[in-house]
Amino acid sequence: MPVVMDADRVAKSLTRIAHEIIEHNRGIDDIRLVGIRTRGVPIARRLAAALKDITGADVPTGALDITLYRDDLMRQSVGPQPVVRSTEIPFDLEGKHVLLVDDVLYTGRTIRAALDALIDFGRPKTIQLVVLVDRGHRELPIRADYVGKNVPTSLRESVQVHLAEIDGRDEVEVQS
Amino acid sequence: MPVVMDADRVAKSLTRIAHEIIEHNRGIDDIRLVGIRTRGVPIARRLAAALKDITGADVPTGALDITLYRDDLMRQSVGPQPVVRSTEIPFDLEGKHVLLVDDVLYTGRTIRAALDALIDFGRPKTIQLVVLVDRGHRELPIRADYVGKNVPTSLRESVQVHLAEIDGRDEVEVQS
Repeated sequence: MPVVMDADRVAKSLTRIAHEIIEHNRGIDDIRLVGIRTRGVPIARRLAAALKDITGADVPTGALDITLYRDDLMRQSVGPQPVVRSTEIPFDLEGKHVLLVDDVLYTGRTIRAALDALIDFGRPKTIQLVVLVDRGHRELPIRADYVGKNVPTSLRESVQVHLAEIDGRDEVEVQS
Repeated sequence: MPVVMDADRVAKSLTRIAHEIIEHNRGIDDIRLVGIRTRGVPIARRLAAALKDITGADVPTGALDITLYRDDLMRQSVGPQPVVRSTEIPFDLEGKHVLLVDDVLYTGRTIRAALDALIDFGRPKTIQLVVLVDRGHRELPIRADYVGKNVPTSLRESVQVHLAEIDGRDEVEVQS
């Protein structure tokens, strides 16, 4: 299985993204991080640590749990729909710049569900998207603002993100 | 007021976008067009005409009506929220490639509301976004798949799209 990002590449990407976030938002006062479970959450926490290393400030970090749901009426042509199962966001989003964080951007359907949840939750001023890997094949007009690595894939391939906090190592692989 | 697109430029952009739509979707059998009122609707109809000129086939075309809604609790920091008021889509969207059409892409909030409405309406296979003008200043991670012209603007400027069907002439102006 080809490794498209090793631990060093993952670390350097997240440091670079932290700098991009600061530059794009002219500071981090109004920044809030929200990771999508499972692997978006440790990535969000690493970004918070990188932002603290650079600025000295703590960025509040929360989590969204989104699962794929297949109902009885679901047709083959569309597939399961993402549904927001729970939110752990113990801070106010109103008027804030919310950085939504996920490991892999693919069809965009999970992100759309997350946008709905965040907007219902608290009227953020902006929602910006951070992903470690963009694998292409979008089904909705969604784009990431910050990308660790663009990894062009075929539909038959899958992208496996391994993170030390969950999997014991940092590595991104493409499986066919 | 600087004119950033004249009638000839508008026409050429829409013809070019029609060709891009055909190439990207490998034909138009499963294409459906949905314009956002007011000015997305005549643009969608012109795209349908251009697609018919090229392929000989009719593409069903509908409309979405989205208005900005400001409730009493709304804060200055966020502004009015787009709400879907009505849909006129007299055909099935299930498993189809839906081309959502608007005149100007700005914050992305109108488009997010439109995505919700289209997905609730009928499980499209993909939703692709067509805009005549992308003026920047996104507040959500939304991007257009097909753009007539990118027009970088300041927040103080506004973009006025005039279309023959509504305004008696085709012209895009930037006002400051």
